[in-house]
Amino acid sequence: MTDPLPPGSTIGILGGGQLGRMLAQAAAKLGLRTHVYSDRADDPAFELAAAATCGEFTDVARIAAFAETVDVITYEFENVPLEAAEAAERLRPLRPGSRALAVAQDRLIEKRFISGLGLPVAPFAEVSSPAMLARELETIGTPAILKTRRFGYDGKGQARIRTPGEASAALAELAGAPAILEGHVAFEREVSILVVRGHDGEVRTYDTPVNEHRDGILYRSTVPSSLEPSHRARAEEIGRLVADALDYVGLLAVEMFHISGDAKNPLIINEIAPRVHNSGHWTLDACHVSQFENHIRAVAGWPLGSTARHSNAVMTNLIGPEADDWRKLAEDPMLSLHLYGKREARAGRKMGHVTRLSPLTESGRAKDD
Amino acid sequence: MTDPLPPGSTIGILGGGQLGRMLAQAAAKLGLRTHVYSDRADDPAFELAAAATCGEFTDVARIAAFAETVDVITYEFENVPLEAAEAAERLRPLRPGSRALAVAQDRLIEKRFISGLGLPVAPFAEVSSPAMLARELETIGTPAILKTRRFGYDGKGQARIRTPGEASAALAELAGAPAILEGHVAFEREVSILVVRGHDGEVRTYDTPVNEHRDGILYRSTVPSSLEPSHRARAEEIGRLVADALDYVGLLAVEMFHISGDAKNPLIINEIAPRVHNSGHWTLDACHVSQFENHIRAVAGWPLGSTARHSNAVMTNLIGPEADDWRKLAEDPMLSLHLYGKREARAGRKMGHVTRLSPLTESGRAKDD
Repeated sequence: MTDPLPPGSTIGILGGGQLGRMLAQAAAKLGLRTHVYSDRADDPAFELAAAATCGEFTDVARIAAFAETVDVITYEFENVPLEAAEAAERLRPLRPGSRALAVAQDRLIEKRFISGLGLPVAPFAEVSSPAMLARELETIGTPAILKTRRFGYDGKGQARIRTPGEASAALAELAGAPAILEGHVAFEREVSILVVRGHDGEVRTYDTPVNEHRDGILYRSTVPSSLEPSHRARAEEIGRLVADALDYVGLLAVEMFHISGDAKNPLIINEIAPRVHNSGHWTLDACHVSQFENHIRAVAGWPLGSTARHSNAVMTNLIGPEADDWRKLAEDPMLSLHLYGKREARAGRKMGHVTRLSPLTESGRAKDD
Repeated sequence: MTDPLPPGSTIGILGGGQLGRMLAQAAAKLGLRTHVYSDRADDPAFELAAAATCGEFTDVARIAAFAETVDVITYEFENVPLEAAEAAERLRPLRPGSRALAVAQDRLIEKRFISGLGLPVAPFAEVSSPAMLARELETIGTPAILKTRRFGYDGKGQARIRTPGEASAALAELAGAPAILEGHVAFEREVSILVVRGHDGEVRTYDTPVNEHRDGILYRSTVPSSLEPSHRARAEEIGRLVADALDYVGLLAVEMFHISGDAKNPLIINEIAPRVHNSGHWTLDACHVSQFENHIRAVAGWPLGSTARHSNAVMTNLIGPEADDWRKLAEDPMLSLHLYGKREARAGRKMGHVTRLSPLTESGRAKDD
């Protein structure tokens, strides 16, 4: 138990992307200051932070100096080097801690951690040589997917293996990076659970969005989903188990595959994101307290806020040139438009998002469920 | 007609208080940058602006230099010196313009302007000497209120006159400042209309809050109010007339007295605020698009956003030490807490506000109406 940080305190944020930007905005709403540390001078979070340090994430001395200027530290991306996170953690509370980072940074450690909790994951195996890959493909079968253990995001660092004959090409694509082979899961839809855990262990969950991807990038998240109530309850249970096991403080997302006909394991865990998550952006417009504010509340040792939803919502990402349509999007009376202030609309880059709101249906579920 | 400013453009804001802070946050949501100009280094808007200039509002050269760094200029308080506003306006579009400032800065000009539109105001008269006051008191009667023409806010610069015998004390209290005498209006409640007008003349209004004051400072705003529909429609008409007459661009608040039994003039206009307004803070939590975002949209030449409400709301200001209760307020699941990042909780200072949300009632009106 710690005392909550009073208004006027400073939260250090490692990472300066749109998640850091929206965290800085949420902190400001509560009268908390932010100091953003990131490695690119034009990162979108810098403009909204009370203080900014532009430095390399590998510069442990710089990270330590940054840590000394703040009251507590959080991060907005899971690839913060562990060494830097640990250096920060020696000086100030790091919430969530370096353990969540260590687990989420490495797909193999992550899968073992989840399995160790008795939770279902796709069949997986470590792969570090062509011989290992051939052997594991025999067990796991095809189709399968070969992924780098580290630094994968938005579909990067992945190669599909449809037949055993594609194995060596897949390995070549990963260019010798330590890898993990994952078996195919015949899922109907992807969902995620957004769970926030306070410093005192209190846990709250948001409604479970159903997520659609395009080219490996999240395209759309919708609430309410069409998950049956027992499966929703299971998603919440999974979120809680993972957060508790990590002694997590802050917002955590668990991405899952949904197989409605599998009575035993309707939800297979795909991956953990130890941070605010793109599939929770709709909470900004449709909830009393957003995922960003609840993350800040947890990190600052404050009471958690309500995760209740006042509207139905469909969040759609604006990728690359899609944000050029801002004028048309701004005209739509039911859309809330969010632009991240990024200067270059490179292909595949998340430039903003829109949330389409509609009145809450009586049951809390969409009419066409 | 002007082209809308593209994301990445910079809006200059004259004034650095909480209204400027919330405007900066709204601009950031749309990918627009802000440059705040204010005269106190610890003003709450500075921390959230991409750029900041700390200078005197009377320093016309400094204001001009500031204007040259931005694409359009707005203001968050009505006491921006007219000379400074005009200097800015010569270099960049000023929205709303200097005319709205000139009208709102002087209670006498304001009353004459409103009367000139054929809209009802309390009986009023210019007062610049004891003889004038005595004479006007005979016409207007007591109780009445003597106010400075300029620089009054939150009940400051006002003296009540219950009987003619109190006249000289009231004049003494105003210390020789040019004054206006206003007759008493026996109103039941105070309401305001929040109207936003786009660069193309489009007008939208928010639901009409009923406002309660304590010690001359806004204490609470509630939507829906208990105004009958025809009176609400009249409030909207008043807002539109005032905004059109000023060729206004941005959000405008008109404060009114409500007299439900007066069929001819149920709403008497008290004053105009040519800016986002405290009685509209509930729009942040209860509307699809807040008053701050709609002001920014108008100023940037964007399409106006929806003024629809998704929840019922009661906004309560946190004055001075009331904000010290932040921990308890943060625990209440139906309250959205906003703190302005002010360091000193001086008596009478607006430190933050809370909005209590409840589900929208079917009729759009509170159950106990």
